[in-house]
Amino acid sequence: MPTHESDALAIGTLRFLAVDMVEAAASGHPGAPLGLAPLAHLIWTRQLRFDPADPAWPDRDRFVLSCGHASALLYGLLHLAGYDLPVAELERFRQLGSRTPGHPEHGHTPGVETTTGPLGQGLATAVGMAMAARMLGGRFDRPGRPLFGHRVWVVASDGDLMEGISAEAASLAGHHRLGNLKVFWDDNRISIDGATDLAFSEDVGARFAAQGWRILRVDDGNDLTALERALDEAAAETQRPVLVAVRTHIGYGSPRQDSAAVHGTPLGAEAARATREALGWPAEPRFLVPDAARAPYREAASRGAAEHAAWRERLAGLAGEEVAAVAELERRLAGRLPDGWQEALPDFSAADPAIATRAASGKVLNALAARLPELVGGSADLSESNSTLIKGEEPFSPERPAGRYVHFGVREHAMGAIANGLALSGALRPFVGTFLIFSDYMRPAIRLAALMGQPVVYVFTHDSIFLGEDGPTHQPIGQLPALRAIPGLVTLRPADACETVQAWRLAAGRRDGPTALVLSRQKLPVLAETAERARQGVARGGYVLWESAPGTPDLILLATGSEVALALDAGRQLAAGDRRVRVVSLPSFELFAAQEAAWRDAVLPPACRRRLAIEAASPFGWHRWVGAEGEVVALDGFGASAPAEDLAAHFGFTVEAVVERALRLAPAP
Amino acid sequence: MPTHESDALAIGTLRFLAVDMVEAAASGHPGAPLGLAPLAHLIWTRQLRFDPADPAWPDRDRFVLSCGHASALLYGLLHLAGYDLPVAELERFRQLGSRTPGHPEHGHTPGVETTTGPLGQGLATAVGMAMAARMLGGRFDRPGRPLFGHRVWVVASDGDLMEGISAEAASLAGHHRLGNLKVFWDDNRISIDGATDLAFSEDVGARFAAQGWRILRVDDGNDLTALERALDEAAAETQRPVLVAVRTHIGYGSPRQDSAAVHGTPLGAEAARATREALGWPAEPRFLVPDAARAPYREAASRGAAEHAAWRERLAGLAGEEVAAVAELERRLAGRLPDGWQEALPDFSAADPAIATRAASGKVLNALAARLPELVGGSADLSESNSTLIKGEEPFSPERPAGRYVHFGVREHAMGAIANGLALSGALRPFVGTFLIFSDYMRPAIRLAALMGQPVVYVFTHDSIFLGEDGPTHQPIGQLPALRAIPGLVTLRPADACETVQAWRLAAGRRDGPTALVLSRQKLPVLAETAERARQGVARGGYVLWESAPGTPDLILLATGSEVALALDAGRQLAAGDRRVRVVSLPSFELFAAQEAAWRDAVLPPACRRRLAIEAASPFGWHRWVGAEGEVVALDGFGASAPAEDLAAHFGFTVEAVVERALRLAPAP
Repeated sequence: MPTHESDALAIGTLRFLAVDMVEAAASGHPGAPLGLAPLAHLIWTRQLRFDPADPAWPDRDRFVLSCGHASALLYGLLHLAGYDLPVAELERFRQLGSRTPGHPEHGHTPGVETTTGPLGQGLATAVGMAMAARMLGGRFDRPGRPLFGHRVWVVASDGDLMEGISAEAASLAGHHRLGNLKVFWDDNRISIDGATDLAFSEDVGARFAAQGWRILRVDDGNDLTALERALDEAAAETQRPVLVAVRTHIGYGSPRQDSAAVHGTPLGAEAARATREALGWPAEPRFLVPDAARAPYREAASRGAAEHAAWRERLAGLAGEEVAAVAELERRLAGRLPDGWQEALPDFSAADPAIATRAASGKVLNALAARLPELVGGSADLSESNSTLIKGEEPFSPERPAGRYVHFGVREHAMGAIANGLALSGALRPFVGTFLIFSDYMRPAIRLAALMGQPVVYVFTHDSIFLGEDGPTHQPIGQLPALRAIPGLVTLRPADACETVQAWRLAAGRRDGPTALVLSRQKLPVLAETAERARQGVARGGYVLWESAPGTPDLILLATGSEVALALDAGRQLAAGDRRVRVVSLPSFELFAAQEAAWRDAVLPPACRRRLAIEAASPFGWHRWVGAEGEVVALDGFGASAPAEDLAAHFGFTVEAVVERALRLAPAP
Repeated sequence: MPTHESDALAIGTLRFLAVDMVEAAASGHPGAPLGLAPLAHLIWTRQLRFDPADPAWPDRDRFVLSCGHASALLYGLLHLAGYDLPVAELERFRQLGSRTPGHPEHGHTPGVETTTGPLGQGLATAVGMAMAARMLGGRFDRPGRPLFGHRVWVVASDGDLMEGISAEAASLAGHHRLGNLKVFWDDNRISIDGATDLAFSEDVGARFAAQGWRILRVDDGNDLTALERALDEAAAETQRPVLVAVRTHIGYGSPRQDSAAVHGTPLGAEAARATREALGWPAEPRFLVPDAARAPYREAASRGAAEHAAWRERLAGLAGEEVAAVAELERRLAGRLPDGWQEALPDFSAADPAIATRAASGKVLNALAARLPELVGGSADLSESNSTLIKGEEPFSPERPAGRYVHFGVREHAMGAIANGLALSGALRPFVGTFLIFSDYMRPAIRLAALMGQPVVYVFTHDSIFLGEDGPTHQPIGQLPALRAIPGLVTLRPADACETVQAWRLAAGRRDGPTALVLSRQKLPVLAETAERARQGVARGGYVLWESAPGTPDLILLATGSEVALALDAGRQLAAGDRRVRVVSLPSFELFAAQEAAWRDAVLPPACRRRLAIEAASPFGWHRWVGAEGEVVALDGFGASAPAEDLAAHFGFTVEAVVERALRLAPAP
């Protein structure tokens, strides 16, 4: 155990590295690091199992700074702990191209386990990380040879706890008795608007206790003895998640201590000087790191290295007995799918009966699940409707940690963040389902998956007004364009079972970002055209499904999903006489946009300006493909509650109505 | 008090009207109505103050069915209570054009207080309704003459309570000690995936108690005596919101009672018959409404009518003493703004120093607030950043119910739903602020505001990468297009202070839907061109801000918000020589799209295909205005953490880069 002198030095170092970073950037959040430094220091040096030589060691403990605005504290910790984050990077805090952005970004800075900043996301993602450890342990741990015994340590702010996603995630964590999750609440009683009691007077401990958590308290966040005791107690608890309420002081030691003014504004030279003086820290130099401050981290890292070595030995021991298990683990950690996995994909043909794409998706998912043990997921209480159930699979539970199916309850937002946490394990490929309309509930988490490049698969069913009688509250209109507007997310709306197979093939094969599958509630015919063309076509995002004659068309009908069959029927009718009509299926705007111009121009010849798109959603975004002279059969307002066929007639999604629109756009020659 | 016989008949009527509606539609949710009928019946006949002769009576009690899928129950109640909802409408449950859609829709069916279905929204909106009663009471109640003493009665499901928005809203309700809010939890232990304990094992009562609620329990949801007692106790509590946990049985009396199978699927003829038999209800006729079943509702309605008359007398009494107060109330209830309100709007000119549009918005908001007492609102803990503070206004609190400013805490989603609840009062015009990036957190509530046509104003600041150092976690990219894709929402991104004034003018004047104001963090010059043109131009959504020469331009630059000044600078540079360059400001896609073609073609002449749009966001949706041959200076991926000027250079938002792009698109003649 390091001496208290080096602890004091390390805590001072963390505090003033943060102050100096924020001062150098003239931007940032000095308040939280000043208050949290003792707690963070002790988590890292007394508890956190880490090995800076291998930031990807699968059984490392995870540290999640849910209050990502305190990033300067995290960068100081990573620096002291020996990650590849030299002082030169700290000096470039919040500058273009530095490894020290304003909020911690996973994949950008070594040692940052997840991207945080949008409040609540870190805590909910951490629940996913704790679940991932349980799941992986369930599959790979052997008696006496644990491989996934790691813990997840979280520092969360008042703001994190006010966000609804935290309540959702905490409820699931308690339900699953995630004893490997330790959350420290930075109880500083200040949020941006002022004292938290302006808006926050709940009994946080009682709230978490009601959700099945163990509650601990530390009355003074500068009392190292009390903090260490709480850390030991938290570590010893393995049956319940733990919330440790730590009373801290935002901006500790600064002239603006305990005030909102110190949250997100640099101290300024004068107050920084006064803070140094108050806490007995040298006025110069800036970015001071006394060598003694590194001692406790060196010790923790060397403990971590030894634990890592022991872990490797346990892995080697397992390898001696269970070749397949270790090969699977290594394959999964490498992000590789097993050889021949695509052979599992089912085939559909026009001879098959009509089938909803959600149902086709369920078949594909089940086929894949048999080959891909890394495929884990569930639904926000719509398992049957989303066709996400894996047949024969037991649900994940404290008793069955190897269960691959998660009943998320009606908690879309936490589900999204938990999926991120599962994916961040590197050894799980999560899928999560809900109705497309409720993608709105989980949008901030989807965005983070995209920002982090995590391969989460979203199964969004009931994808249009054609869900029918549930009415406008449940009928997505703006959700498709809203998803398409998220950079890095691939959104796929397959036309039938064949395209659904290909959509899943792409989603499962993707390693660098999330995929949204947008699927019908209603049955759709399996199209003769897709069987041969969908494989290449879906991968290209858009392709010629059918044309009445080769050559530059007189009219192009474009559609996605359930409207493709309609476009085909209308196209065939419009092709009477000499008119050259083409039908294009465009399951993914993003993939199509990413093709070389030659492909895009071959599918949508620039010479043909008469283009009619058909999609039962907002027309927003379609003009990129139909051009200024093209039109879109779409919905300008909300839907209505009625049987699907009545809605089709009412909103103009019939062959007759489409043909009429097309004839107005491109009158018969 | 009606006899228990008529109660039993009424309860049976509610149950079997629901069963018959669902059977007739072959679609819907019979389970919840069967379980909830006794509770709902007693709320309506023993407590709810309503007057079907005037569904808009301002002091009526509100009934919110947060579990909107139980709509058939609500329609039965409205029918029995004498609202304009005849049996013929019940028979057309879930049919096109009926007044009985799949989920209750406010504005569509008389007596439906808010649109519900997306879980959690009803409960959170109800918190807004309870706050509205407090606020209006704070302004208009006089000693001995209360005008806003009404209560809000909510029925909520397990799913409602699992959603994070409920935790956010409940926390605020407890914080504000909303004793006028009574929530009944339909504790039926079943959700769609099966038993709730698959995913939900928290102690709900303890959780709400931790948030400051009074907890009551009813062990048998069919025990009318116990229910009545709980209702009395709930009504008597005025210091805290009340949660009554009512143990019910989903699908009560049916062969599938207590199973998920009865949640969202019609019983089918055989099970419907069995249920009738089990509960002693006649096999025929369908849609039976025994006259005696109406008796308790008649009595409640006549009590309500008397209370309404007494209320009118109190109002008349006030009118005799305080003419201005009553005139204000009547004006507000009519949705009219006071004469001359626009005179309050400040003026800006190019002589003014540069000012962020968020700061300009703050000035406009304060000027309006002085004239419009109905303007109430707040921020999700970003009051200073959003410039939403009303100077000199005390925050809303239990001690200051007339306070117009609400500190929502870090609870964007509940804030959005609460704003809906405030707006639904008809006498409040809510505004709510957060960063644009966090519009994602509140998107489901924004969508409901649009669906209900409620005039909520969203103040979304920090609207682009130019917020700078906070980095990609906080830099909106896909949020602008995502908002533009919501039908009924008007999104305005003003170019400078002058356009901000006009944007607020439109937002404040709007009565039929919500408006999103998208505002810069950074200072922007006040443009010489906007002072004269913005008033008409912003109302039109898009307008010619500047052109180098009249006539059809050779090149059009289009921009919104902070990029308009950039477009002007680039345009002036590009206009060297003979080239005719035009700069178009397009603050609102929706408003521009709604103009007649003549206006749109005058602004964007079809003959000019060389169009370059500039917006620091996703390019998604811009091709409608630039056409297939146009281009967009935008962001294809996420932003970065750096000072704003470095980001401008890095991402190509400089005059030089724009000019270069423009020259490639439209080479010099």
